Amino acid sequence: MGLPAALDLAGIFVFALSGALTAVRQRLDLVGMAVLAGATALGGGILRDVAIGAVPPKAFTSVGYVVMPLAASALVFFWHPQVTRLLPAVLFFDAAGLGLFCATGTGKALAFGLSPVHAVLLGVVTAVGGGVLRDVLSGQVPSVLYDRQLYALPAALGASVVAVAHVLGAGGGAVTAGAAALAFALRLLALRYGWRTPRPRGVPG
Amino acid sequence: MGLPAALDLAGIFVFALSGALTAVRQRLDLVGMAVLAGATALGGGILRDVAIGAVPPKAFTSVGYVVMPLAASALVFFWHPQVTRLLPAVLFFDAAGLGLFCATGTGKALAFGLSPVHAVLLGVVTAVGGGVLRDVLSGQVPSVLYDRQLYALPAALGASVVAVAHVLGAGGGAVTAGAAALAFALRLLALRYGWRTPRPRGVPG
Amino acid sequence: MGLPAALDLAGIFVFALSGALTAVRQRLDLVGMAVLAGATALGGGILRDVAIGAVPPKAFTSVGYVVMPLAASALVFFWHPQVTRLLPAVLFFDAAGLGLFCATGTGKALAFGLSPVHAVLLGVVTAVGGGVLRDVLSGQVPSVLYDRQLYALPAALGASVVAVAHVLGAGGGAVTAGAAALAFALRLLALRYGWRTPRPRGVPG
Repeated sequence: MGLPAALDLAGIFVFALSGALTAVRQRLDLVGMAVLAGATALGGGILRDVAIGAVPPKAFTSVGYVVMPLAASALVFFWHPQVTRLLPAVLFFDAAGLGLFCATGTGKALAFGLSPVHAVLLGVVTAVGGGVLRDVLSGQVPSVLYDRQLYALPAALGASVVAVAHVLGAGGGAVTAGAAALAFALRLLALRYGWRTPRPRGVPG
Repeated sequence: MGLPAALDLAGIFVFALSGALTAVRQRLDLVGMAVLAGATALGGGILRDVAIGAVPPKAFTSVGYVVMPLAASALVFFWHPQVTRLLPAVLFFDAAGLGLFCATGTGKALAFGLSPVHAVLLGVVTAVGGGVLRDVLSGQVPSVLYDRQLYALPAALGASVVAVAHVLGAGGGAVTAGAAALAFALRLLALRYGWRTPRPRGVPG
Repeated sequence: MGLPAALDLAGIFVFALSGALTAVRQRLDLVGMAVLAGATALGGGILRDVAIGAVPPKAFTSVGYVVMPLAASALVFFWHPQVTRLLPAVLFFDAAGLGLFCATGTGKALAFGLSPVHAVLLGVVTAVGGGVLRDVLSGQVPSVLYDRQLYALPAALGASVVAVAHVLGAGGGAVTAGAAALAFALRLLALRYGWRTPRPRGVPG
């Protein structure tokens, strides 16, 4: 397994942790935990793959994509107080996953022949779609829709970098890594300084 | 761009307005507004296209389909009090979009070889699916499920006209226009006279 | 129509009843009832078919798959007090549908070339996906996520039996029937004895 595949599985794992911790907060059982872990980790990629016609989606062909959410569920099931104490670290790695998936999602959509505009859209879907599913399944309005501390915008930035590079004839691992790092950095800065998405005037937070 | 394409984009725009206004009511931010605008405008067509195998769905190949929700979001972001004052007009145009999409959605499903029964079903999904997504994403029970003032039934009527005409060997722009007009008219009459979908006995509104 | 097809339609019908009864409880109208009946009965199979690339999904090619939810809606619309009184029977037949769909769903995924692990996953999705859609559409956290009385686990058991038999070179009607019976029996036992899915420690029910 090369570095990209290892990073990919690590991103899946961290997203799955966030789903499993949501299940604890919502007082769900082991099934709910596995479902939220899987939906959070795999939902964005499944939506992208179905949209671009990459069927069956990678979630249904890669064994690692099933093992990671189950492993995250087992971890949280037995040690959720300890994992909860590591929440700052989970947020840090979640930001890394956000960066990674917006970049790789955009690249996959471009590879399937979508226009740069649509590839950006699907890159963002890849990065935030799983979290949207997690929130809808657990009875909450998706947090990305009111975006405490920029979440979708860093993903849009990373996706745009990949798409613009593609238009300029560039691509490959360096562009993906740079775009992911940029999205990751913007997300961390937003967390650190409390940067928020603008709201329509007259609409309180 | 011919008249059908222009009408199609106009319908997308009005559905997107309804999504963006929902975001204001739900106190979401700019990201939430763009997501609800896009989901409302494009959700029904995406569901239909995935179901019939028209992949990537038109939402992921047409640039206009991405521009319209962004334009509607920008408009509502800066001038939502004014747009809200125009709500009766939004309802009027939404009814026009409902009529248009139930007719064109049914036609597309027939063109992909589906039976008339299933084409009607997918015509209704095209017309109401975006609104269902909008409501689920904003944490509400989809309004079409308790249908204050007929909404799905006018769409089913318009879709049925297209399907019956197809069985009788007719089709094309005139049938689409007639079916859309019929659905549009029934929706306006329902709004004007407060016609509602029947409820099971003993179930209050 | 052979026995498998008849059982399949019977399972669709019972799942549709459960959706239609939910619509009564949630005070929805006739449209809401038909939508919940259809989503509950067909949602799991549609998700599976889209995932494995069996497009259009059977729900959009089989007329019986549309007729059953409409028939269940008509029945519940006019006679819901009587149907509600039959709820124990509905739970019994729902358990039969759960068993049937986890087994046939896994078999279809295997027939489309998915690995045994992913086929089990999609077998469970087939069996419980419709109920998840029903609950999300009616504004509730999906009951399968907190699983009063085992629901997803019997489906996982039945799906695993089909997948393991496939690995061992067995298949066909006898395996499907046996796996379905096993899931059915475990679900009934869980209902009878109140067996519940484990929860993470410190998380009350």
